[in-house]
Amino acid sequence: MTNLSVFSDEYFMKKAFYQAKLAAEKGEVPVGAVITLDNQIIAQTHNQVEQLNDVTAHAEILAITAAAEHIGTKYLWDCTLYVTLEPCIMCAGAINWAQIGKLVFSAQDDKKGFMRVGRSLLHDRTKLAYGVMEQESSELIKSFFARLR
Amino acid sequence: MTNLSVFSDEYFMKKAFYQAKLAAEKGEVPVGAVITLDNQIIAQTHNQVEQLNDVTAHAEILAITAAAEHIGTKYLWDCTLYVTLEPCIMCAGAINWAQIGKLVFSAQDDKKGFMRVGRSLLHDRTKLAYGVMEQESSELIKSFFARLR
Repeated sequence: MTNLSVFSDEYFMKKAFYQAKLAAEKGEVPVGAVITLDNQIIAQTHNQVEQLNDVTAHAEILAITAAAEHIGTKYLWDCTLYVTLEPCIMCAGAINWAQIGKLVFSAQDDKKGFMRVGRSLLHDRTKLAYGVMEQESSELIKSFFARLR
Repeated sequence: MTNLSVFSDEYFMKKAFYQAKLAAEKGEVPVGAVITLDNQIIAQTHNQVEQLNDVTAHAEILAITAAAEHIGTKYLWDCTLYVTLEPCIMCAGAINWAQIGKLVFSAQDDKKGFMRVGRSLLHDRTKLAYGVMEQESSELIKSFFARLR
């Protein structure tokens, strides 16, 4: 018998992916996010830029705000943020301020992602993983933009 | 007779500086912001990170959200953002997404400011000016942190 927890990165990324699909249904760029603490989901959000008419309403920003509200501290040291797309520069900056324990992202974003500047944008204490469900998340975004054209 | 408008960068930076002082009175890191459109102030905000328990509640983020709400479009092409401290990476990213017409900041921030990465973080359409009321804004922040120690 293997010792795998059901609470794998893939388990939570699937929840974030579900949020991304909700965004797509509303005509938003399909990005979803989940924040966990001790394997409990404490925030689940999706991109709401169009709905809120606010460029800052990315899934990650909304998730960080909701998670801090939930736990009552502005720092998210013991939390993990799952997001279906590589965070942009703005969101990487927010993730840095929140000092999140771990960031897991799915699809890469060569144009707008923070990795083109480098992982130095994240706080030293933030662990980083990526590529979980990369193909599904990437396909979801590509098909969204293909429909717009 | 000179042709100077009363609506100079210094005029609006003074309004942002007033916001920064409001922040200081509430125990917030004293940063204030103002957004103008056609020389009218359409948003004036200050840092509320502690009050809202939210690392994303920087003066610039709150101002961008308020200005977009006011004019009804998410892009702030014809707006100018005045802020008393060099924006951080997160806020520079938000300013980029908003495609703000002009950014004017006051005090420099060598540790957390976006200029250590470079002005390439801003959108091509965003004009940049800085140094307006630099000494006053810098002193306000320094005296705030001196009191904390």
